[in-house]
Amino acid sequence: MEEAEKTFENEQYRKTYWHTCSHILAQALKRLYPDVKLAIGPSIDEGFYYDVDLSGSFTQENLKEVEKEMRKICKENNQLERFALSREEAKELMADQPYKLELIEGIPEGDEISFYRQGDFTDLCAGPHLETTKQVNGSGLKLTSCTGAYWRGDEHNKMLTRIYGVAFPTKDELDAFIAAKEEAKRRDHNKIGRELEYFTTVDYIGQGLPIILPKGARVIQTLQRWVEDLEQRRGYLLTKTPFMAKRELYKISGHWDHYLNGMFVLGDPDDEKSECFALRPMTCPFQYQVYLNRERSYRDLPMRFNETSTLFRNEDSGEMHGLIRVRQFTISEGHLVIRPDQLEQEFKGCLDLAKHILDTVGLLDRCTFRFSQWDPANPNNKYEGTPEQWEAAQSSMAKILDDLGVDYTVGIDEAAFYGPKLDIQFRNVYGKEDTIVTIQIDMLLAERFGMVYTGDDGEKKTPYIIHRTSLGCYERTLAYLLETYAGALPTWLAPEQVRVLSIKDSVVDYAQGVVDKLGAMGIRVESDFSSNTLGYKIRNGQKEKVPYMVIIGEKDMENNTISIRYRNGEDLGAMSFEEFASLVKGVVDSKEKK
Amino acid sequence: MEEAEKTFENEQYRKTYWHTCSHILAQALKRLYPDVKLAIGPSIDEGFYYDVDLSGSFTQENLKEVEKEMRKICKENNQLERFALSREEAKELMADQPYKLELIEGIPEGDEISFYRQGDFTDLCAGPHLETTKQVNGSGLKLTSCTGAYWRGDEHNKMLTRIYGVAFPTKDELDAFIAAKEEAKRRDHNKIGRELEYFTTVDYIGQGLPIILPKGARVIQTLQRWVEDLEQRRGYLLTKTPFMAKRELYKISGHWDHYLNGMFVLGDPDDEKSECFALRPMTCPFQYQVYLNRERSYRDLPMRFNETSTLFRNEDSGEMHGLIRVRQFTISEGHLVIRPDQLEQEFKGCLDLAKHILDTVGLLDRCTFRFSQWDPANPNNKYEGTPEQWEAAQSSMAKILDDLGVDYTVGIDEAAFYGPKLDIQFRNVYGKEDTIVTIQIDMLLAERFGMVYTGDDGEKKTPYIIHRTSLGCYERTLAYLLETYAGALPTWLAPEQVRVLSIKDSVVDYAQGVVDKLGAMGIRVESDFSSNTLGYKIRNGQKEKVPYMVIIGEKDMENNTISIRYRNGEDLGAMSFEEFASLVKGVVDSKEKK
Repeated sequence: MEEAEKTFENEQYRKTYWHTCSHILAQALKRLYPDVKLAIGPSIDEGFYYDVDLSGSFTQENLKEVEKEMRKICKENNQLERFALSREEAKELMADQPYKLELIEGIPEGDEISFYRQGDFTDLCAGPHLETTKQVNGSGLKLTSCTGAYWRGDEHNKMLTRIYGVAFPTKDELDAFIAAKEEAKRRDHNKIGRELEYFTTVDYIGQGLPIILPKGARVIQTLQRWVEDLEQRRGYLLTKTPFMAKRELYKISGHWDHYLNGMFVLGDPDDEKSECFALRPMTCPFQYQVYLNRERSYRDLPMRFNETSTLFRNEDSGEMHGLIRVRQFTISEGHLVIRPDQLEQEFKGCLDLAKHILDTVGLLDRCTFRFSQWDPANPNNKYEGTPEQWEAAQSSMAKILDDLGVDYTVGIDEAAFYGPKLDIQFRNVYGKEDTIVTIQIDMLLAERFGMVYTGDDGEKKTPYIIHRTSLGCYERTLAYLLETYAGALPTWLAPEQVRVLSIKDSVVDYAQGVVDKLGAMGIRVESDFSSNTLGYKIRNGQKEKVPYMVIIGEKDMENNTISIRYRNGEDLGAMSFEEFASLVKGVVDSKEKK
Repeated sequence: MEEAEKTFENEQYRKTYWHTCSHILAQALKRLYPDVKLAIGPSIDEGFYYDVDLSGSFTQENLKEVEKEMRKICKENNQLERFALSREEAKELMADQPYKLELIEGIPEGDEISFYRQGDFTDLCAGPHLETTKQVNGSGLKLTSCTGAYWRGDEHNKMLTRIYGVAFPTKDELDAFIAAKEEAKRRDHNKIGRELEYFTTVDYIGQGLPIILPKGARVIQTLQRWVEDLEQRRGYLLTKTPFMAKRELYKISGHWDHYLNGMFVLGDPDDEKSECFALRPMTCPFQYQVYLNRERSYRDLPMRFNETSTLFRNEDSGEMHGLIRVRQFTISEGHLVIRPDQLEQEFKGCLDLAKHILDTVGLLDRCTFRFSQWDPANPNNKYEGTPEQWEAAQSSMAKILDDLGVDYTVGIDEAAFYGPKLDIQFRNVYGKEDTIVTIQIDMLLAERFGMVYTGDDGEKKTPYIIHRTSLGCYERTLAYLLETYAGALPTWLAPEQVRVLSIKDSVVDYAQGVVDKLGAMGIRVESDFSSNTLGYKIRNGQKEKVPYMVIIGEKDMENNTISIRYRNGEDLGAMSFEEFASLVKGVVDSKEKK
């Protein structure tokens, strides 16, 4: 590696640095636990780990001691020396390390069997490594956790101890990393979404099948009504189509050939004689039936269909995550059946709507745009249509995106099997990117389903189709909202917008009147008239991120006022009911991000 | 039969009458088509039929001629004489009737083989019959249709001709019956719902999986929002739970044992080692998870949960009908978790809500109430719980129903497997009864799912559960609404409330202004500015049952008025926009049944 590349921004250098850290970890363990048996110790995306077999118990408590020993090793400035041995010599050297012996057995005949030595420690390893242990700054190093892990990831094997660590060239960088991790954890929807009772999961129902609790359901209801109304005003026709269909439908659509593994099948897919259904992974061919319900002419187009649509995808267990990646989800689905001359205008309308929606909920700033294209090197397997058709669709899309000034990256082999996509991407708190909204151009599927329109020349023509979402998947968007706002959703979306707290029992009737009046205005209001102290009640409200707390004491009752406190602790003071009502209504109606 | 029972209201007499008609039909056929081979000719719920094997073609056209011959036979006053034969004699008598020979073969040894003779015609038959053919009034008799039918209903057998008929003691009664049938057809949602584009079905998607078209989806959206809001105001907490779960959930709930055949299973139900999901046929145990998400105390109860919930039932092909009986449907689901002392009050609340909803949509008048009980003779197979538990639940329910003055019939063996139900029943246009709304008392399932609350004495107690719907299944209710209103839904539910028609092109800008203003008010408005004649446009609007047509000519534009026509043809004359706006808004907001 050139000297210039030896910076932590360089991924290869960073991984080398972390890999050397894992050897330092192993060396420290050997010194403290001479009987330890070492398995493997790679660098990973964020740091490194080592799987080890320790005879006694080992817990978080022991990490500090190991860390201390590691810092000592860094200071020792041991040179890392590489050498190779024959298989026999290698086995002899590792005679007391059963996992290493198994690894040596697995090295193909003819391959070099290499080792790295650093002072009193030698490990079977292909490298590369830093030159000396001193190049690792001990003060920028931290062991983060230890968990169980099966040898070779196989549950039939012995459970080993996996020790995770991370390291940076300076302590400041380490501290920043730890702070970012803690912030991510504080915002992680999979943690706070459960704590704040937005959703839960239950073993005997299944992974990836979240139960949306009343608070989450209320947010989704609010979003859904808003999106359906927005779309209706933009000329969309709402549909409600079935969640499953016979195999025959998916054969026409191509999903049977391209997506069978991702679908939930009811019946035996291989038995062609008996009826076989599958849950839908998409809405397209279902919504096309609405178009096909009668003859259409060029004057009927564009036809814009929307649906609050539930889809099912048989994700692998390892893929699932909170509300972001699930097996059943509900999206703001839509298909536009258009004439070719309407493509740019309608695409623009879809993008405009999606941006308006993402902007209103406060997610647009952190979105990026990806132009997802096919992979010409892999045309027959995964994609329908000819190279010419792909060229046509992709160049149309490129032109539209350029005309609209969309700042995008290109994703090769990220297209749908029927056409290119504009994917609006979002990162969760841990930096994992997923698609939040998609707009796709499809010049293929209309023909497969026999969708036509009569042109102004009286000829039957094949329309284009735009597949699109506007808010995306309600579950995923709820997750991103919880993470973006750390649980404190904007008032218009908050499941509970106002909580009325009584200071004394004598004010309860007055306070109930306030609750009733707010409720009649359509404000989502709850009350806490319990005998707990006011401080306790306020802390509860803040913990539950309720935007406004209305606090009512005897003085309020005398003056016919109410006292308002915002969830961030700000005291808005006493005001009349009407003043507060108009304040809240203003915040809700304008969809302010507070 | 006593003389007093020889009236047409008496089912036994009616069936006897129709059975004799089927013999008269056969006799007439024998005279007109001497080679006819007779199969079977029973009475049915509405009339009678005869399955016959005719060598030549036979169509609707031939029915008149057969009818004429039947009337002649009625006048002949043939006595019907019963006699029995030995098997050998019977076979000899029916030697040229292969289907009768097959029937004779099937008569068990030792059973009597009886015949009925009327004049020149004799038929194998167990009876009973009228005494003479003259007791059938020929002028009250009609052959209604002929279709194909397999011998013994087996598609591997020969296709026979089935001739249907009906008969009444007087021509007036026949005419009334025919008129009622035509009215039913005119209202049949399965016909008009398709013609008016509320829904459709598609072979390659599957039976019982309707595609709800934009008009149907808009009605369901309107109903759904209204019901969800009503329920929220009554203290319900909205949930959104997954549509499938692992087999383990259904084993706890009892559905795996009691309802497996009715469920769609994903995976092999018999392979206990691999993961197996099933689509849910009910919401109960999913919604219970919301209750189970934290500890509950007696102060938290009642907890009322609602959900706009989609369910799946694997109905037999023969059972499915339009939107009334389908494989996937969405209901206004709800479960109340209550203390035993809250049972009557909460049950009453559920009944009150359901009656309010059914009354508002205009269906309550034609509802009947059924108290659905278990069958003590069949306790172990179909029902959970002990006779004592059933006794307790049913006597609680009886007391509540009597206290509330509900006028009900009792349905034995109609209970849910976990408890008794109050079913609100509705008949479709053909008289077929189904449940529209149900309210059920369940003292069993809470325990199975470990649902408890802490009583005021600090002890853990098991709550009761009320399972209930309020509007029932949206698809089914939409069907009943279409039938009740013959497609002309009340304005507040109509998918298109107002249509603006232009008389001349010169008024289009003015007319568009009217459309825009109505749209901004939230009125569902469309326009017809085509070049068709006004008469044609009005007929279209009436055919599509659009409540209000706004007709705009040059005079309207000059006077700044609009002219209004109601869908029944009533001319409401010219008025200002504001007048009309307030008229429509009033009708919509008050949910008038017009």
